[in-house]
Amino acid sequence: MKHNFGAGPCILPQNVFKEAAAAVLDFNGLSILEVSHRHKDYVAVMSEAIELVKKALNVPEGYSVIFLQGGATLGFTIAALNMMRDHKRAGYINTGTWASGAIKEAKKVGIDVVNLGSSEDKQFTYIPKNIEIPADLDYIHFTSNNTIYGTQFHDFPKTDLPLVCDMSSDIFSKEINVADYDLIYAGAQKNLGPAGATLYIVKDSALGKSTSPFLPSYLDLKLHAEKESMYNTPPVFSVYVAMLNLRDLLKNGGVKAKEQENIAKANLLYREIDSNPLFEGNVAVEDRSLMNVSFKLKNEALEAEFDKAWKAADIVGLPGHRSVGGYRASMYNALPLSSVQVLVDVMKDFAQKNA
Amino acid sequence: MKHNFGAGPCILPQNVFKEAAAAVLDFNGLSILEVSHRHKDYVAVMSEAIELVKKALNVPEGYSVIFLQGGATLGFTIAALNMMRDHKRAGYINTGTWASGAIKEAKKVGIDVVNLGSSEDKQFTYIPKNIEIPADLDYIHFTSNNTIYGTQFHDFPKTDLPLVCDMSSDIFSKEINVADYDLIYAGAQKNLGPAGATLYIVKDSALGKSTSPFLPSYLDLKLHAEKESMYNTPPVFSVYVAMLNLRDLLKNGGVKAKEQENIAKANLLYREIDSNPLFEGNVAVEDRSLMNVSFKLKNEALEAEFDKAWKAADIVGLPGHRSVGGYRASMYNALPLSSVQVLVDVMKDFAQKNA
Repeated sequence: MKHNFGAGPCILPQNVFKEAAAAVLDFNGLSILEVSHRHKDYVAVMSEAIELVKKALNVPEGYSVIFLQGGATLGFTIAALNMMRDHKRAGYINTGTWASGAIKEAKKVGIDVVNLGSSEDKQFTYIPKNIEIPADLDYIHFTSNNTIYGTQFHDFPKTDLPLVCDMSSDIFSKEINVADYDLIYAGAQKNLGPAGATLYIVKDSALGKSTSPFLPSYLDLKLHAEKESMYNTPPVFSVYVAMLNLRDLLKNGGVKAKEQENIAKANLLYREIDSNPLFEGNVAVEDRSLMNVSFKLKNEALEAEFDKAWKAADIVGLPGHRSVGGYRASMYNALPLSSVQVLVDVMKDFAQKNA
Repeated sequence: MKHNFGAGPCILPQNVFKEAAAAVLDFNGLSILEVSHRHKDYVAVMSEAIELVKKALNVPEGYSVIFLQGGATLGFTIAALNMMRDHKRAGYINTGTWASGAIKEAKKVGIDVVNLGSSEDKQFTYIPKNIEIPADLDYIHFTSNNTIYGTQFHDFPKTDLPLVCDMSSDIFSKEINVADYDLIYAGAQKNLGPAGATLYIVKDSALGKSTSPFLPSYLDLKLHAEKESMYNTPPVFSVYVAMLNLRDLLKNGGVKAKEQENIAKANLLYREIDSNPLFEGNVAVEDRSLMNVSFKLKNEALEAEFDKAWKAADIVGLPGHRSVGGYRASMYNALPLSSVQVLVDVMKDFAQKNA
């Protein structure tokens, strides 16, 4: 078996792959790929997926869970359109590519974006601190985990303003307090399921209040909440696999248990990075991500040799994002501690050989 | 095996299901569900899917093929935004629910919609004829096949204006002349693949000419064409299965062969409807769809008994759309003639028993 450290679409539990493959061949007598989304058996899948999200994240009353398409990229637009109020002004924190994308799309739909903090000055290697929040904003937007750089918000200032968060790459990896947010959105393809579905968790009282003169039906969360994600044909298979994965998550202790495992995996690898003389981490220690560990060789000339070593150990997906270089070990929920141990062993061995 | 007459998501070839299931378990050593869309093996899948679309539909030079998400519902908005020019006015033909949806979404983004014809007066049971086309339009939009009612355009008036068509439910079922269109779009979940992908075929010279003050990146076909459908994470698995299905289509004679099969299937069933004393078709004979055959019992009191009969023959998906009632036999590419024969036999047998 390969050790998949890819940044996403990424590893899911092996038994989820098995159950998904079985349903492609037979889902109550048809392939899951040919079943109508209006069939009662599939309506039950969608309902269960929504209920499992609520259970896994302890979603309080007064919130709707929605499955859509288009990824976080369309989510940037949907968030801005649905959260736009009278100010038509919102605060954004710029922690890199995805946060910048959210800012760009908000501006495109007419949001006056106030920069509440940016780590662009140091190539996004830290999370901006001491964020001051003006009062005349419709909402505040941040990106909880920055996949490309390997930084993560470990807390966020309390505010009475509506909070909107792109949690694409760390949702379901740890406990969160949904009540802190008016809107959470996340591309599925990290800890939730395969590519092709996007999750929205929205406070019902925030629905139907957009002041945008432009709101196509597909981008209107109120319509989707009312139709329970069946306003139009949903991404049938992606939601089905997400449901299988959520079942697996809850059977194995839920996000509480995963959080402990994710901390253990991160500790194992960061300890190696910090103690191994050949490597160093890329980002501020206090802002390190538990999901995406970004590191490099102090001596880049050794890269080709190190690449041979981890590839020989059946590790895949380790190269850093093209904009950062070096290495990135993405350690989503389904990656076992044993895979991290394999990487750590390769690093130790490599250090000995190059002592 | 069940005979799947469902309207979509719908039947695909059995060997496509088998190959898709195999890839969920093993696609070059990983599950297709965990492979990065940036991996060369998946980039090759996307390229092949695009090339096979071009080959299957004989797409001429100067057109781009794009895979997106969001279904035809988001397509309504994307079409209007990308085709909007100085008039901000377009002609639409209203042939039912989906065409009406396209009209609604065009209006929402600021298109002044000119009604070029409507069959609403007779519950959309025919295709409007003698369409007159004013000159001061940015484009003309129609829905080639109307899944719910079972009507289909068998030709369209020649025009010099840009033609835009929602071909969700008959694309790949017959030969078309792509050069007639500036933009074709289609939800995948009929003859192309599983739900979760949407196909766009767009004339390159039509890209980048929108006059809309509002054009989010995800809705901008120019960006997607430039990035070869990889502007953001595509619906990896849906595109993969579409590629498998296109391979199968081309191996089996392409759309030319499918068109002959589809005509044979439609002839078989329509002949039975017209000759069987218990049944009648719902729509104008000259506008009958080859994809969705809409019919009913002359005596509705027999419905429960007829339902028992076709269910006993392992037929599924036959009930008409809730807005029409009666029956609808959807006969997409992958439905074999033998399945249509099973239905015809049930109808004949039912007529004998109720003579």
